[in-house]
Amino acid sequence: MANKLTPRNEDYSQRYNDLVKNADLAENSSVRWCMVIKPYWYAIWENIRDVLDAMFKATGHQNAYFPLFIPKSFFSKEANHVEGFAKECAVVTHYRLKNDENWKWIVVDPDAKLEEELIVRPTSETIIWDSYRNWIKSHRDLPLLINQWANVVRWEMRTRLFLRSAEFLWQEWHTAHATAEEADIEARKMMEVYSDFVKNFMAIYHYKGEKPEHEKFAWAVKTYTFEPMMQDYKALQAWTSHNLGQNFAKAFDVKFTNKNNELEYVYATSWWVSTRLMWGLIMSHSDDNWLVLPPALAPIHLVIVPIAKTPEDKEEVLNALAPTLEKLKKEKLCINSQFLEEYKIPYKVKIDDDDQKTPGWKFNEWELKWVPLRIAIWKRDLEAWQVELFRRDTMEKEMVKIEDLFDKITSLLNEIQLNMYKKHEKFTIEHTYTADTYDELKEKVEKGFVLAHWDGTKETAMKVQDEIKATIRCLPFDWEIKEGIDPVSGKPSKRRVIYAKSY
Amino acid sequence: MANKLTPRNEDYSQRYNDLVKNADLAENSSVRWCMVIKPYWYAIWENIRDVLDAMFKATGHQNAYFPLFIPKSFFSKEANHVEGFAKECAVVTHYRLKNDENWKWIVVDPDAKLEEELIVRPTSETIIWDSYRNWIKSHRDLPLLINQWANVVRWEMRTRLFLRSAEFLWQEWHTAHATAEEADIEARKMMEVYSDFVKNFMAIYHYKGEKPEHEKFAWAVKTYTFEPMMQDYKALQAWTSHNLGQNFAKAFDVKFTNKNNELEYVYATSWWVSTRLMWGLIMSHSDDNWLVLPPALAPIHLVIVPIAKTPEDKEEVLNALAPTLEKLKKEKLCINSQFLEEYKIPYKVKIDDDDQKTPGWKFNEWELKWVPLRIAIWKRDLEAWQVELFRRDTMEKEMVKIEDLFDKITSLLNEIQLNMYKKHEKFTIEHTYTADTYDELKEKVEKGFVLAHWDGTKETAMKVQDEIKATIRCLPFDWEIKEGIDPVSGKPSKRRVIYAKSY
Repeated sequence: MANKLTPRNEDYSQRYNDLVKNADLAENSSVRWCMVIKPYWYAIWENIRDVLDAMFKATGHQNAYFPLFIPKSFFSKEANHVEGFAKECAVVTHYRLKNDENWKWIVVDPDAKLEEELIVRPTSETIIWDSYRNWIKSHRDLPLLINQWANVVRWEMRTRLFLRSAEFLWQEWHTAHATAEEADIEARKMMEVYSDFVKNFMAIYHYKGEKPEHEKFAWAVKTYTFEPMMQDYKALQAWTSHNLGQNFAKAFDVKFTNKNNELEYVYATSWWVSTRLMWGLIMSHSDDNWLVLPPALAPIHLVIVPIAKTPEDKEEVLNALAPTLEKLKKEKLCINSQFLEEYKIPYKVKIDDDDQKTPGWKFNEWELKWVPLRIAIWKRDLEAWQVELFRRDTMEKEMVKIEDLFDKITSLLNEIQLNMYKKHEKFTIEHTYTADTYDELKEKVEKGFVLAHWDGTKETAMKVQDEIKATIRCLPFDWEIKEGIDPVSGKPSKRRVIYAKSY
Repeated sequence: MANKLTPRNEDYSQRYNDLVKNADLAENSSVRWCMVIKPYWYAIWENIRDVLDAMFKATGHQNAYFPLFIPKSFFSKEANHVEGFAKECAVVTHYRLKNDENWKWIVVDPDAKLEEELIVRPTSETIIWDSYRNWIKSHRDLPLLINQWANVVRWEMRTRLFLRSAEFLWQEWHTAHATAEEADIEARKMMEVYSDFVKNFMAIYHYKGEKPEHEKFAWAVKTYTFEPMMQDYKALQAWTSHNLGQNFAKAFDVKFTNKNNELEYVYATSWWVSTRLMWGLIMSHSDDNWLVLPPALAPIHLVIVPIAKTPEDKEEVLNALAPTLEKLKKEKLCINSQFLEEYKIPYKVKIDDDDQKTPGWKFNEWELKWVPLRIAIWKRDLEAWQVELFRRDTMEKEMVKIEDLFDKITSLLNEIQLNMYKKHEKFTIEHTYTADTYDELKEKVEKGFVLAHWDGTKETAMKVQDEIKATIRCLPFDWEIKEGIDPVSGKPSKRRVIYAKSY
């Protein structure tokens, strides 16, 4: 049975951990910093993966799979170029175990030392671009649009259960293009793909934009982002799309013969999302009654709990629902998407007729897992040919005629999905402010995102970061660009940017 | 451009490598023994995964994800029980890299040594059962039916490119049950699931059966298998399903309270398939013109090559096909399956209108990749309102009226799928013999599977293995059980078994 949830205003990270445990999403494993993703979370991740994968394929991309291990020397190459490269990695040094002298324990065989250590991939650009070097010879081989779904490992010391686990699942995306323009179009397009997914499937409102120079990925020419507001008013970084220019190609020496028959470095983009999306999902939507799941990603849309004393009664009440279930089997939940036209999701119904559990136990179980709709059906209700329908978002119950059930279920699922987005949109807009003085910025950034002028210098951004722990999240696209005065430095500014606190 | 394929009777493994390279399925990576799975193979693997996953879910199973790393001590536990445990593993000993003194190279930080080494999973039972111990308390928690899709690493010295790479992708399946009967039913049912997939999707004929005592998995009470014949008459081991009895539960100390309120060890099953299935696919079907793909698993069903001198001509010829393509978009390729009723696959059409490549280049490219059907369309053929349709299995071309195209395409894809199975069935049955003397067994096992009597002893099986390199593949289910005389030992035998050579 679930424990009490930590209040939102007390310890937000602990609240997240409570949510994950209560909804049976994940648990700590015996391997320090690694978690077990339990079936319910994994089913949500599969739904996320399937939608994104369909979008990737609809935009002409292919999947492939590259090795888990990267030779250490590949990192040395990169180290010459990048300061602050993440060095917390799992290092493989040996390739064999053996029994100890007493045949009691297993020990690492000292004779089986690798000539060169292998690193468990923290990300795969080095090994992928090492392959691309052989694949790309001519402009005819471009664009190369490849994605990988994989596990990656980062032994970050600030690892925290669930939010930052050492191993996580992600997709990473590495494209190669013949011109700078094409690479920029790709990077912007894929930001739109993510944004479409986050809006229509995750029901999360957000601001799209470009990272300022000092916040962009070290290799990138431009980093595109979108920034959603979590319930504690912080921004979450869970997705970025990079136009890498020729930086990668120069580091990995990948040239192609262009249409003018000249050798040129290729242009690249990259981007990723990970299981950390779950954090965004939970922290954008969770209510006082815990986990909230958009129907578009929910593993179960509708749970049916027959309440009957005898097997005959159970059969009778379930038979009453059979025509509704047949109809649901044939129809789909359709989610609009700019890239997929309509994405069709089969209605997922669970009949919980387990005789070993009480109805109360079942109600609680499926509320914790935030199944959007629940039908409870008693034999006595069959006389009036009606059932009790419960919607998880408002916690309201109503009696519905069985002949109206199908329409009610399908319209409610759409309504719940749209309401979630509207609610998050309203929350975000209500907590998005403008500030024209530093004091205003300081005060308002505690309660939301703040649009303020910025003089364009790293110094000013760093001063704000040091003094009030807020960073420039992005130069938003959908905001009128007007000149003004930077409230921190007093210098002229070309436009407002979004300041916020973040994780 | 492709190289010549090694003849079937020369070096079968080299032939396989040639196939993999020619069809652009995979390549060696810079990491020794690890391969890059290229988009075409990965797309086939995705198709395999999607069908199997649908079958797993249809039979009530759920996916989850367990850590990549396993503490070394977990293996010691297992080592006490199992002789011959695979010890070739990737061992993680450190968790940080650092710059060397000159900031020129990256080295392993000696201060970042793990207290306990971690093993990259060669298989996950140890870590999964470690979790199950906490999940299973009562008979109400059973059955627990969990599958994992994951990468695993085995540093086997006999590693060979593609066939045995150190890292490969697989699914592994670990279930827990309340009774011995339930576990055996599960193990047999899942063998039927695999068999259904291999027959209907991979178009591979096979013999189902049980492994003899000395050939079964060390932990298993029973190991179920099915054995297909490769083109060199060898059997391929690519799938097994194990009824593990209480052996795992005893090793990992997993008990539950049964319905009589007594503590009891749980009953378990396990099974897996891997990317090595590709080997079976290629080596069952490949012809002299190389790779052969069943339409049910092909990434592309139909490639269309418009042949036109001007953009206007190209548009015109493609427009002529538009109604056919519209119809294909709405219909599905339906594959019969005992577990999915009908599995519906969208028709996958590729229009290859790349102006940078010649028609001849394209024809060759798609033949190598074994796209089952190809349409070539010239403007001159529009007068007679017909196109050239090429089928890859027979290499035959015919002119087809455009109004007949849809019917022709859909029926040909079904025909090719069924023909592949029939061809493999015929080949297998023609090369399945009975033998009543040791000399007969010796002679015939060079050219196929041999049904011979066996006295049931390991000694006899080992003698055959030592002397003629053939093993008992299974005690086949679908074969009349009659007593006889073992041709090797001369002792009484209860039934015939299948002898064959294998990989």
